[in-house]
Amino acid sequence: MDGEIPRELAEEMDSFDPLAEFRNRFIITNPHMIYLDGNSLGRLPAATPDFLDAVVRKDWGAGLVRSWQTWIDWAGCLGDRLAVHALGARPGEVTLSDSTSVNIYKLAAAALDAAPDRGTVIIDADDFPTNRYVMQGLAAQRKLTPRAVQSHVDNGLDLDVLRAALDDDVALIVLSLVSYRCGALLDMAAVNVAAREVGALVLWDLSHAVGVIPIALNAVGADLAVGCTYKYLNGGPGSPAFLYVRTELQPVLQQPIWGWFGQRDQFQMGSDYDPLGHIERFLVGTPPLLSLAAVDPALTLMEQADVTRVREKGMRLGQLIVELADRWLPSHGFRLASPRRAEHRGSHVSLAHPDAWRVCQSLAEDASVICDFRVPDRLRIGPSPVYTRFVDVWDAMDRLRDLVANRSYERFPQERTRVT
Amino acid sequence: MDGEIPRELAEEMDSFDPLAEFRNRFIITNPHMIYLDGNSLGRLPAATPDFLDAVVRKDWGAGLVRSWQTWIDWAGCLGDRLAVHALGARPGEVTLSDSTSVNIYKLAAAALDAAPDRGTVIIDADDFPTNRYVMQGLAAQRKLTPRAVQSHVDNGLDLDVLRAALDDDVALIVLSLVSYRCGALLDMAAVNVAAREVGALVLWDLSHAVGVIPIALNAVGADLAVGCTYKYLNGGPGSPAFLYVRTELQPVLQQPIWGWFGQRDQFQMGSDYDPLGHIERFLVGTPPLLSLAAVDPALTLMEQADVTRVREKGMRLGQLIVELADRWLPSHGFRLASPRRAEHRGSHVSLAHPDAWRVCQSLAEDASVICDFRVPDRLRIGPSPVYTRFVDVWDAMDRLRDLVANRSYERFPQERTRVT
Repeated sequence: MDGEIPRELAEEMDSFDPLAEFRNRFIITNPHMIYLDGNSLGRLPAATPDFLDAVVRKDWGAGLVRSWQTWIDWAGCLGDRLAVHALGARPGEVTLSDSTSVNIYKLAAAALDAAPDRGTVIIDADDFPTNRYVMQGLAAQRKLTPRAVQSHVDNGLDLDVLRAALDDDVALIVLSLVSYRCGALLDMAAVNVAAREVGALVLWDLSHAVGVIPIALNAVGADLAVGCTYKYLNGGPGSPAFLYVRTELQPVLQQPIWGWFGQRDQFQMGSDYDPLGHIERFLVGTPPLLSLAAVDPALTLMEQADVTRVREKGMRLGQLIVELADRWLPSHGFRLASPRRAEHRGSHVSLAHPDAWRVCQSLAEDASVICDFRVPDRLRIGPSPVYTRFVDVWDAMDRLRDLVANRSYERFPQERTRVT
Repeated sequence: MDGEIPRELAEEMDSFDPLAEFRNRFIITNPHMIYLDGNSLGRLPAATPDFLDAVVRKDWGAGLVRSWQTWIDWAGCLGDRLAVHALGARPGEVTLSDSTSVNIYKLAAAALDAAPDRGTVIIDADDFPTNRYVMQGLAAQRKLTPRAVQSHVDNGLDLDVLRAALDDDVALIVLSLVSYRCGALLDMAAVNVAAREVGALVLWDLSHAVGVIPIALNAVGADLAVGCTYKYLNGGPGSPAFLYVRTELQPVLQQPIWGWFGQRDQFQMGSDYDPLGHIERFLVGTPPLLSLAAVDPALTLMEQADVTRVREKGMRLGQLIVELADRWLPSHGFRLASPRRAEHRGSHVSLAHPDAWRVCQSLAEDASVICDFRVPDRLRIGPSPVYTRFVDVWDAMDRLRDLVANRSYERFPQERTRVT
């Protein structure tokens, strides 16, 4: 596409958007503020406050401990829905539990225990920190060699780089389907095939993909996966993570934290740990019920939106960012720091700029555009197709252009303060 | 106390109760229902629904990702308050994180790593299941010997039994301050002294004690502790657990799940795990914020109630249960299954009865008295002094007496269904 992209074009794209009405199903208190950080914390669904208030007042307040008769099944029920709707897996293969970090630990440890003769784990040197750290810990504790493959900083992991790192000493490969920084989308099927050729398992972190990328865990032969529910799934801050274990692997993998929620006949309170045979063996302790509850109305909304439509719109939103950036920003010191083609990206786009930290601050405070910053110099722009309009992207890029043209960001200190 | 105990005596005790007004600070939808399961799930504080709704609508809905600037400190702030108010510890020694089971795993693994030359862990064969199972797992993974000491079924662990099990091969002792089943209260100082004599660490589970027993972790030289916030602290179903690590131990213990919330300069996203030097090194991943938030108003209420007053009333409530049981229930097949003296118990009292399961069901459905059942034959009665009145205990025991006299519980099936 050459030539100018007028705002009217974005308006026209919105007028043909089959997901347009979904924006009304979120609480948007400040219409002037443009929120492009759905990759970090999704917006509040309109149904959530009342749903949660009913759980608090009716279930907890009136039902009290008796409500555990139903609560105890929620993690599994939500897991089943997530399996079918968002992950291309079967009921009984997914549950919600703990944080993503704890789930990576549990599944990775289980996978390593199942391959005691192998001494190498593969991580991506550019992966989200917790994935690398948890695997560094497991490697140190088990005297394994962590072998870090190097992603391309803007285009993600090259499959040939990964293949070159594989041999029959590799027990486990841990990768993110969508890179948290550059947004690169990996070919899950190809990675799984390459892993299987050397007899390694793959543990996928789907945090930056779930809800915006159609995922087919069964079809691509995925072994293990984890992910957040608070990004594009809009489950609320720190909502419990999910974990997936392929049916055939469930009875042969044992996770290391032998908590009572994984115990057969839990309330028999037997003397010895005897884990359940299915996905619940990967549970540990009592789930944080209020945070778990908020996932329910969010998931209902996403089921109705349909991830295939979400992906189609997400690719268009991303392409609009790229094309506006191409036209408006190079002369102001910006560079695209994500794969150029929509098929190779998740839902967020990163731009590199030497003053990205100050630009990000100024965007929020001077222009009411919320993006986020990632070290060293990335502005991460994460539209969420269920509530982000094409005009939001156009307006945000327009405000960004003005701001860098005026250099208004220079009033912010260069030193970074703590951000999320 | 001999002779009959008339209801008027309970009324009089309520009229002199300095905590009486605290009952009004809970939401009580059904005044006829008597709730004596505060040892499992505490009631809903009246301040909680609005507090949580504000977190949902204002912090999440309007503030969105920017709210993490304050949220990120909540676990530590709540931990500091809990340390000072309820645990006799210093700010910086307690934080909220994960479930109790995951915290036991983290702290126990850290303690075992610090004593690589020792091969034995001590557990209580009658401890809450998750404590035993987690330690069985760690022992199996590290080829250690789990040595189970046997509690007295009604009176808890005898210190001499524990002492006889200690030698200089013991790395760690895991015990509950208050037994989940019989309610026996251990002498924490004496256990810590005995452990120190053989150079072992002690990990205390305070779940059934915190909020009803004044705890002085620093004064009794406690090393490590964990516990729930959803029982007597009323933090809501599955609210995040706390963990305590004595200041001096913090820099020398390393927990095994190397998540990004334990990382120095977390958002620098450095290449290698480099844990913080203080209590936050025991954190792992993003906390379940809504469940965490509900702990705040609950803790405010408990701070104002004051745990010393709570304990005084709790002892009287328990004694009233024991004395009414003595008078009314032996002829109906009941036996006291808890320590007889209030100083040796937590806040709950257990009664043994061959049909305890059916009695518990009938109490709930026919008499609107909510207690709980524990295998094999225990009815567990858990008043919570901040909202349980003396007349509640009198009425509950009166209804129990009628119910067993009429044998109305016999209409319930003997076979147990799943309960919590």
